[in-house]
Amino acid sequence: MTSADADTGLLAPGWTGSPAAAATSDAAYLRALLDAEAALTRAQAALGLVPAPAGPAVTSAADAATLDVRSLAERARGGGNPVIPLVADLTEAVGPEYGPYVHRGATSQDILDTATMLVAARTLDLVLADLGRTESALAVLAAAHRDTAMPGRTLTQHAVPTTFGLKAAGWRSLLLDARDRLAVVRATLPAQLGGAAGTAAAFTVFGATDTHALGAAYARELGLHAPELPWHTLRTPIADLAGALAFAAGALGKMAADVLTLARTEIAEVAEGSGGGSSAMPHKANPVRSTLIAAAARRAPHLAATLYGSLAAEDERPAGAWHAEWEPLRELLRLVGGAARDAVELTRGLRVDPDAMRRHLDLTHGLIVSERLAAELAPVLGRALARELLTRTAERVYAEGRSLGELLAEEPELKDLDLADLTDPTRYTGSAGALTDRALERR
Amino acid sequence: MTSADADTGLLAPGWTGSPAAAATSDAAYLRALLDAEAALTRAQAALGLVPAPAGPAVTSAADAATLDVRSLAERARGGGNPVIPLVADLTEAVGPEYGPYVHRGATSQDILDTATMLVAARTLDLVLADLGRTESALAVLAAAHRDTAMPGRTLTQHAVPTTFGLKAAGWRSLLLDARDRLAVVRATLPAQLGGAAGTAAAFTVFGATDTHALGAAYARELGLHAPELPWHTLRTPIADLAGALAFAAGALGKMAADVLTLARTEIAEVAEGSGGGSSAMPHKANPVRSTLIAAAARRAPHLAATLYGSLAAEDERPAGAWHAEWEPLRELLRLVGGAARDAVELTRGLRVDPDAMRRHLDLTHGLIVSERLAAELAPVLGRALARELLTRTAERVYAEGRSLGELLAEEPELKDLDLADLTDPTRYTGSAGALTDRALERR
Amino acid sequence: MTSADADTGLLAPGWTGSPAAAATSDAAYLRALLDAEAALTRAQAALGLVPAPAGPAVTSAADAATLDVRSLAERARGGGNPVIPLVADLTEAVGPEYGPYVHRGATSQDILDTATMLVAARTLDLVLADLGRTESALAVLAAAHRDTAMPGRTLTQHAVPTTFGLKAAGWRSLLLDARDRLAVVRATLPAQLGGAAGTAAAFTVFGATDTHALGAAYARELGLHAPELPWHTLRTPIADLAGALAFAAGALGKMAADVLTLARTEIAEVAEGSGGGSSAMPHKANPVRSTLIAAAARRAPHLAATLYGSLAAEDERPAGAWHAEWEPLRELLRLVGGAARDAVELTRGLRVDPDAMRRHLDLTHGLIVSERLAAELAPVLGRALARELLTRTAERVYAEGRSLGELLAEEPELKDLDLADLTDPTRYTGSAGALTDRALERR
Amino acid sequence: MTSADADTGLLAPGWTGSPAAAATSDAAYLRALLDAEAALTRAQAALGLVPAPAGPAVTSAADAATLDVRSLAERARGGGNPVIPLVADLTEAVGPEYGPYVHRGATSQDILDTATMLVAARTLDLVLADLGRTESALAVLAAAHRDTAMPGRTLTQHAVPTTFGLKAAGWRSLLLDARDRLAVVRATLPAQLGGAAGTAAAFTVFGATDTHALGAAYARELGLHAPELPWHTLRTPIADLAGALAFAAGALGKMAADVLTLARTEIAEVAEGSGGGSSAMPHKANPVRSTLIAAAARRAPHLAATLYGSLAAEDERPAGAWHAEWEPLRELLRLVGGAARDAVELTRGLRVDPDAMRRHLDLTHGLIVSERLAAELAPVLGRALARELLTRTAERVYAEGRSLGELLAEEPELKDLDLADLTDPTRYTGSAGALTDRALERR
Repeated sequence: MTSADADTGLLAPGWTGSPAAAATSDAAYLRALLDAEAALTRAQAALGLVPAPAGPAVTSAADAATLDVRSLAERARGGGNPVIPLVADLTEAVGPEYGPYVHRGATSQDILDTATMLVAARTLDLVLADLGRTESALAVLAAAHRDTAMPGRTLTQHAVPTTFGLKAAGWRSLLLDARDRLAVVRATLPAQLGGAAGTAAAFTVFGATDTHALGAAYARELGLHAPELPWHTLRTPIADLAGALAFAAGALGKMAADVLTLARTEIAEVAEGSGGGSSAMPHKANPVRSTLIAAAARRAPHLAATLYGSLAAEDERPAGAWHAEWEPLRELLRLVGGAARDAVELTRGLRVDPDAMRRHLDLTHGLIVSERLAAELAPVLGRALARELLTRTAERVYAEGRSLGELLAEEPELKDLDLADLTDPTRYTGSAGALTDRALERR
Repeated sequence: MTSADADTGLLAPGWTGSPAAAATSDAAYLRALLDAEAALTRAQAALGLVPAPAGPAVTSAADAATLDVRSLAERARGGGNPVIPLVADLTEAVGPEYGPYVHRGATSQDILDTATMLVAARTLDLVLADLGRTESALAVLAAAHRDTAMPGRTLTQHAVPTTFGLKAAGWRSLLLDARDRLAVVRATLPAQLGGAAGTAAAFTVFGATDTHALGAAYARELGLHAPELPWHTLRTPIADLAGALAFAAGALGKMAADVLTLARTEIAEVAEGSGGGSSAMPHKANPVRSTLIAAAARRAPHLAATLYGSLAAEDERPAGAWHAEWEPLRELLRLVGGAARDAVELTRGLRVDPDAMRRHLDLTHGLIVSERLAAELAPVLGRALARELLTRTAERVYAEGRSLGELLAEEPELKDLDLADLTDPTRYTGSAGALTDRALERR
Repeated sequence: MTSADADTGLLAPGWTGSPAAAATSDAAYLRALLDAEAALTRAQAALGLVPAPAGPAVTSAADAATLDVRSLAERARGGGNPVIPLVADLTEAVGPEYGPYVHRGATSQDILDTATMLVAARTLDLVLADLGRTESALAVLAAAHRDTAMPGRTLTQHAVPTTFGLKAAGWRSLLLDARDRLAVVRATLPAQLGGAAGTAAAFTVFGATDTHALGAAYARELGLHAPELPWHTLRTPIADLAGALAFAAGALGKMAADVLTLARTEIAEVAEGSGGGSSAMPHKANPVRSTLIAAAARRAPHLAATLYGSLAAEDERPAGAWHAEWEPLRELLRLVGGAARDAVELTRGLRVDPDAMRRHLDLTHGLIVSERLAAELAPVLGRALARELLTRTAERVYAEGRSLGELLAEEPELKDLDLADLTDPTRYTGSAGALTDRALERR
Repeated sequence: MTSADADTGLLAPGWTGSPAAAATSDAAYLRALLDAEAALTRAQAALGLVPAPAGPAVTSAADAATLDVRSLAERARGGGNPVIPLVADLTEAVGPEYGPYVHRGATSQDILDTATMLVAARTLDLVLADLGRTESALAVLAAAHRDTAMPGRTLTQHAVPTTFGLKAAGWRSLLLDARDRLAVVRATLPAQLGGAAGTAAAFTVFGATDTHALGAAYARELGLHAPELPWHTLRTPIADLAGALAFAAGALGKMAADVLTLARTEIAEVAEGSGGGSSAMPHKANPVRSTLIAAAARRAPHLAATLYGSLAAEDERPAGAWHAEWEPLRELLRLVGGAARDAVELTRGLRVDPDAMRRHLDLTHGLIVSERLAAELAPVLGRALARELLTRTAERVYAEGRSLGELLAEEPELKDLDLADLTDPTRYTGSAGALTDRALERR
């Protein structure tokens, strides 16, 4: 048993053990905090604001530091953030000569915000990779099932036929939208550097004549974007992350919602590659990956809303709005990261049953193409009569259990129509194929 | 540095190290899961459904078990919940003779829901204790400052005077409301026992003739309420926790919002006992406790909303709605637990500056009692004239920087009024004292 | 076409035209605002604080007033709430003699909060009535289908059998929980009376010696609860409404989620009495009532969260938190009111197809009772062998399309077992009947 | 009094009467629905799919239609959306010859989604214009106060000086971020055209060989974007609106939060141009515009979360997720539209008091520049001694009420320093001026 109050994801099968989990752990944040401090000193050294050896001195101390996360967490209570004790520990680790150049001119938020961006960047790279794997798997599915007809369902009822290819292409399209939004945000994640109240004043005291150049150097050290302004209470980067991550969770959630429906015992048109089993119920193959993705999709909007709410932050640095961001943003990164991992497994392993789809197209005894018949019969019978005939015949279909085509064949006025073709559900998939093709052209 | 992906609260100064943190850790959940399994076997033994020695055998194995949380977490991915690997490990720990009586007839959700209720019960006891400590401290403050006049502020502006006693009594009243709501929920937290689909069918196969009696025995073993029905998808207990915890967070957040306002540099009518400092800015005494409580209050409604959203759970056990509850409920318990801890410190240490309050009553040069004057002058001058005089005088107050009383004293029609008394803000606190007294009678 | 910017529910089929819609319209709020003003004057008259005829004078003017809602709405912009122009209009309507006794000593929030409680009370009465109708209909369904076996579904897959009676009883139980929670809140909705900053000071100037008695008289006039303290920023009543309404929406949403699942074309175990049709697709019978309830359940948690968030309101009256409550609370009342109306129709008209349920019990070829078999075979074969046999047989069931009973009958060791009985799904509903009976005892 | 259940914004001073209110009214939606129907017929006529005169016939009928919104709303209940009765009414209005070409091949969602995009486009144009006016006003303020020093506040306490110019430039920067995000979304709002299940099948029956071309023609008629795929359950446009609107609300909310703080009676560094008054309290000038913006910012994240939640929509068209979008999206558009209107008034009328700002810089008796002194004294005294001296002196500042500069002047080691300059808060604004200049270059 690990220590009494360390969490290792016991309640989080959706993300535990995932790359995103490791990339967002306390240890990962600590690493990013140390990276930020080291980069700041190096940037100052590069601009001649601190002695040149301070850069490598702080960097190697930060790299070698074996700080106690729990101790930092506990000491964070006093000032309300973990950077305060971190600076103390790192300064001591660097030693008396270059210790004074640790965190020089910065405020806690400079470091924590920058570290958060680093964590986000590192996690988004993992998420984007898994989204890429997922869309590739979906492209394969969509192409393979370009012409696999299945019931199109609206408000839970069969409407008209569609294809599984179009469905998979739609999932992919939504994931590409998610990828595009995440990629835009990823590319612009900024470093934070503003000092106590966002004026960079302390840096000027220490000799910086162009604090923007300092910020840019700092960002460069970390592979982050140079900010236009300090953004202590201009939280665009956080809100952008919130929106893109909530979008990604929802996009994955759309696919999961469909798989959960299609995997139902009565439908069984798809199945997860390795459903979660039950020892007492050997027939059960639970769609666990979809379930966990669906759970993430339920939670993400609320976490994003918390972050959007923190935009309304008063003053130069706020009392609460900032602090309320930390855990929800991490949780969003984790949930999306875990869901993206599950999506890879889900889409790579998804088993599709075209026969079941074909069978279900007949569940309504041909009525699934009644929309087509209404259109085709109108020129023959007149619009009103056509509709009336169809309504009457639909009632007979259910009452007599005979098919729409069979009953219509009894109508003498329709003898010239190729009713077998007109009532074949697989012949009424409209532009599904063309839409699938076009959607798959998107990269 | 602890292991790479264990969290110990680095981003959570609001709850890290608190009693609630320990009570809601992965280890605490594991403990509760084992307690639930052991209680189930004991209850079955008590009813003669399993061999009598199975109860103590499973109990002592559960007590002694040193299961690896991380391993359980990882293996939870397969089936989507941690009970499946837990049962495997516990069965093995119990050994071949009584191992088969572990988890007999139960479903994973029976155990996880029950464990969640245990964790909630244990955490709420801690929260209730801290709310009790807080309301006691507030009762002392309210009584001590029953007649300490201060500006009443509405829409950020001075309105009419109030007292700090009434303000503190109001905070306390809201916390007592929170306490009452949490206590009601605490008292009715139910065990869960329904089997695979809530029919308790497996228990009947194993000989139970009255599965309600079994559920009651199980609940009794754990100090929980016996449920009316299995509540796998009747999530009243979760929703009730959500509501009461969101309420508590908001109640604490109201107090924090006030302290943050009153502690502003320009107002400084209160200060936290030990403000968080800044080495570079020795004058700063940040209201850190209030800040962290405020952050919790920003987050709690969203977490509660996630839980309310899970009420709409399909079928006998749902694919996602249940899984989406686990982490948000834990987080709510932690946030409220941490905020309650901070509230104790905040209220016990709060420093009140009646002089500052008194000074601020004069900031509007007497206009803070203009409501009173409007009422008192109406009988003398007529309502319209009184209002006109006051409006005109108010303008002069600002233009000339003289006080309302002084300017009104120049009006001959008012010479019989005791303007010194009428314009004394400390004499216009209305029923604040009586309201405070009545509020303090509540226990 | 009505006027350019009046809304009549075009986007709200879920609540438009419902009793709750009328009870929460702008006109209903205006009525309640006028009722509150009139009651305040009457209460003051009763205590001798204003001339006796002022009570009836204001009351009859308020009753007869034909104020222009749109004009009030527009003039509300200036001060940020509608009471300010309302008081002007009502004062004028009352006339010069008693006009001065309109709103005397009160603040806008006293009137708006009180009116909101009146609107809530009136709407909750309607909601409670519809919940009562719904639970009655569910009681009938549950009793009628006490022994109607159907598949119990977990994580979208058939698990073990259950009954439709237990399902309907569960829905009813959840609705009774909602009813109980709403009834508690309904019974304690308080009037608001605190004056400019909650000290009731102006009332004392006008002669009130016991402002609590005034508040009680005021509340009595309106059939509301007398508040312990002015609650301008102690928002317990709002938060309690939020919680109970979100609960009710979720409880209704649970039922809707199940109906939407069971009404699927492939499942069709239930159907709404009058499904929404489609002219082009005469076979479609959309479960519209459930759809609209489900939509309400998706929205309610977010609206409740907005209200819980407003608990953290600074000062004696806040700048934003209060204003953010008005529309979300109305929307919650409407959504729940509309969903309760739809629930009456849904449950009264629900068509249940026991034959479909029975058929579906065989979809897994008997495996739906494998849990039972595992238990029953263990004593015969030993636990390990029993499990192995079942797993092997389950595979054959799917591969060969033969039933579990048939395949097990080939096993010589099992020849003494009554396999027909053991594999009959309708004989494995556990305590479903007893649970239904007990649940129906609740009133 | 308008009709019993029409709403005209009585509870919505934040948006009532605004351009956005008119652009999102029921009447505006009806207009957009009719526009969408007419455009669809015109597009089909342009492609030769319907008789050429059908386009103008439907268009002129749609333009002239005086449909009863309330009746449509009521009849929308049956099928769960307003398009069904709308099509019936419009078909009748067009008459027997071209009536059959109304809505041909379309599904309700095609029309309602397209109308929603039209409403969004029209409203966003208004919002963008008001954001433009606001940013212009802020640019003026920022330039005018480029060097107006004021206290920088963090966690409610004075930290180091900043300038009002930088603060206003920051508000503007955030609004430009909002503008950019809204503009991107505005430019890509797509028409919707997919038919019953998104395959456009009915259009093909009516002769369309390239349904993408039809969708493009339809979009062109309406000034909307041609969609890549039907997006009935690929809700990118809705989610993008949600994110951009929540962002805009939060950006406006940041400014409002600051104004509310700075307008406090004790601070009074800014005041709204025309504060909302109180007849009984003539001194009150409530910051009403900020209050209403703040209220919108509190609500928007929850509305956006509802919309993000609807991404997880099952099937080809969902039962609830779609319906749950309509009102929240309208409400978001309204809230942001109203808040943008208030922001124009707020920023154009904002009164800034540089003298108050200057005075407050002295509230901490010079300690507001202690960060600077710590840096400047270190080279003279050594880092440890400097810090110790400052801490000791800070205590004396509070105890003796003398200024930091005055006390430091007593230290002989510091006699060569220009303490007057070093302790002048207006000389310690760092890069505030340069940051303001750069921020203002952004257009």
